[in-house]
Amino acid sequence: MNNFVFTNPTKLVFGKGQIARLAKLIPSDAKIMITIGGGSIFNNGIYNQVVDALKGRDWVEFRGIEPNPEFETLMKAVEEAKEKEIDFLLAVGGGSVIDGTKFIATAMHYEGDPWDFLLDERKAANAKATTLATVLTLPATGSEMNNGSVISRRAYGEKRAFHSANTFPLFSILDPEAIYSLPKRQIANGIVDTFAHTLEQYLTDGTEGSAMVMDRWAEGLLQTLIDIAPKLTVERMSYDAAANFMLTATMGLNGFVAMGVEQDWATHMIGHELTALHSLDHGITLAIVHPALMDVMREEKRAKLLQYGERVFGIKEGSEEQRIDKAIQATEMFYRSLGVKTRLSEHSIGESTVNEIVKRFTDRGWRVGERGIVTPEKVGEILRKAL
Amino acid sequence: MNNFVFTNPTKLVFGKGQIARLAKLIPSDAKIMITIGGGSIFNNGIYNQVVDALKGRDWVEFRGIEPNPEFETLMKAVEEAKEKEIDFLLAVGGGSVIDGTKFIATAMHYEGDPWDFLLDERKAANAKATTLATVLTLPATGSEMNNGSVISRRAYGEKRAFHSANTFPLFSILDPEAIYSLPKRQIANGIVDTFAHTLEQYLTDGTEGSAMVMDRWAEGLLQTLIDIAPKLTVERMSYDAAANFMLTATMGLNGFVAMGVEQDWATHMIGHELTALHSLDHGITLAIVHPALMDVMREEKRAKLLQYGERVFGIKEGSEEQRIDKAIQATEMFYRSLGVKTRLSEHSIGESTVNEIVKRFTDRGWRVGERGIVTPEKVGEILRKAL
Repeated sequence: MNNFVFTNPTKLVFGKGQIARLAKLIPSDAKIMITIGGGSIFNNGIYNQVVDALKGRDWVEFRGIEPNPEFETLMKAVEEAKEKEIDFLLAVGGGSVIDGTKFIATAMHYEGDPWDFLLDERKAANAKATTLATVLTLPATGSEMNNGSVISRRAYGEKRAFHSANTFPLFSILDPEAIYSLPKRQIANGIVDTFAHTLEQYLTDGTEGSAMVMDRWAEGLLQTLIDIAPKLTVERMSYDAAANFMLTATMGLNGFVAMGVEQDWATHMIGHELTALHSLDHGITLAIVHPALMDVMREEKRAKLLQYGERVFGIKEGSEEQRIDKAIQATEMFYRSLGVKTRLSEHSIGESTVNEIVKRFTDRGWRVGERGIVTPEKVGEILRKAL
Repeated sequence: MNNFVFTNPTKLVFGKGQIARLAKLIPSDAKIMITIGGGSIFNNGIYNQVVDALKGRDWVEFRGIEPNPEFETLMKAVEEAKEKEIDFLLAVGGGSVIDGTKFIATAMHYEGDPWDFLLDERKAANAKATTLATVLTLPATGSEMNNGSVISRRAYGEKRAFHSANTFPLFSILDPEAIYSLPKRQIANGIVDTFAHTLEQYLTDGTEGSAMVMDRWAEGLLQTLIDIAPKLTVERMSYDAAANFMLTATMGLNGFVAMGVEQDWATHMIGHELTALHSLDHGITLAIVHPALMDVMREEKRAKLLQYGERVFGIKEGSEEQRIDKAIQATEMFYRSLGVKTRLSEHSIGESTVNEIVKRFTDRGWRVGERGIVTPEKVGEILRKAL
């Protein structure tokens, strides 16, 4: 097991009717900015619940943070928050709104150009940040209980991440009833996203047994997703299906299953480029890249692929090669069972994009995956396998 | 899934050589009291590592916190800490030293008789506490990453618990190398303790599926313990076995697997009385009570007992009754494989103790277990089954 430091100060407030507790959770003298994405919270009653809970409090709102939150949009929020001397940010939305709010929180206090955070994470690491909290409406990214943020800048065709010690939400309210009305496409993307996050922290070349307990927990997240996916994509989901999905998505990327383990993240790094170039949903990019990455990296990840196949999908028969093939197929079939396309060609993406992404990785000198084992050359192999 | 609020601010600092980081983790102007149990840390080098790390810092030490930490002893530490204006407590030891230190931390600031905390938890709930941190030397109780404390008062024959919002350790250093030299009996007790903590949060009458993801995580802890127990009780344990044990013990009682689930804790409540009356090791009492409790409560816990048998021990054959019998036997055999006796008679404890404990539960009006389903009458049945 690797040495590690773990800390996660976010308070989870989980369950039915918890949005009503907002007023008690936010300091009484706070000057609050509510940050919002598109229109869904106006249709499902969440917006009204938040406004009711904050009756008599000092708040403004900033609307229009888009999926894959855009630097230019967020900078407008930064200006407004500074002007109005906001000292508490309440993100009401999914991962994009929350990620965007983390950027606003830090950019408000930064003297230089805040794009710096995305170019050099070290500038963000201990940057001052306005206190933020969240009301989660879309389980997927885990952003409600971590300190990471992914920001896009369409003018540059870029999508990049930063982390800061000061961007953990103070609290996050997770009400499973908030997701009943989500479009099935968003539910499917959230399942894929959570599955892929977990794989990034699990499916590495670490020898079996080095972080046995975290392997079990990661497998537990994957097994739960497989168990509940059919219950989430039906017309009416049950409260328990919604609750287990919401909790699983949060646990998939809050540092819990990362304790002491190697991590990969190559799938995300490659996927971010597909989103930057073709505006594909984040979850869809992961469903495309992950099965192909498993195939190309099968030698390095052999032991873990076999363990994954056996424990998560019950694959025990056949030679090692056959079992690995089955595990990869089972992964791709799971994604496809959610209605997610898993091939670049299904999105009319071809060789020219592959070449552009390989060029970007090469130019930046990026070697990704655990300890850099995914070279730009391997990135090309992976993308060609996913055509 | 039940509504819940989760928060755990403790920073885990995990791995080889981490004790050397103490000086950076404790505020530079702190007046430190190191709290210590018996002599083991003087033999295994931990004491010297701590003293080396604190060179030049302002510290005193308090020695002699015993297993099942004693109120009278702790009150001496409270007096000394107040007199010396201590503002940082560093527990170096196992669960008893850490639990005792949580008591010292709160009792230092309490105007009345601090035994009040043990008689009425509400008095402790938000009580002021001196900042505390830990260097863990014995994985078992999870106290290094929670806010609970169990204190004994031998003059009264009592052993009781309290929790406070302010008794989470600021940080806990977990160096797996610290446990290489532990006596095998303590390792065995720690494994039993962790197994039993996990069962208390898992083996309830909740319907399958209400907190599916946490069931998986609890099963993951149990499976890991079964996998690593044989590697821990051999002459020389490996680093990875020690590390996985240490991490599993901490994860077993830090609130993580408790999210949204019913909890039982009847085994602990009964076990505490056995310790109070006969000074049995905590882990030993759990190994005695748990299999008997499963048997007596088999109707209420039927669904979960079947799931436990199948997922943790691979029991799939036979009628429901047979599978439950096998799951109970497998639990008892696991404890016995660690060299732990699982029957009261093996400790020369008989009917008179059973009657005394039933009388205590009756007199106090205690109904324990999930939602009070374990009545004093059931406590009698359980203890008789364990004779």
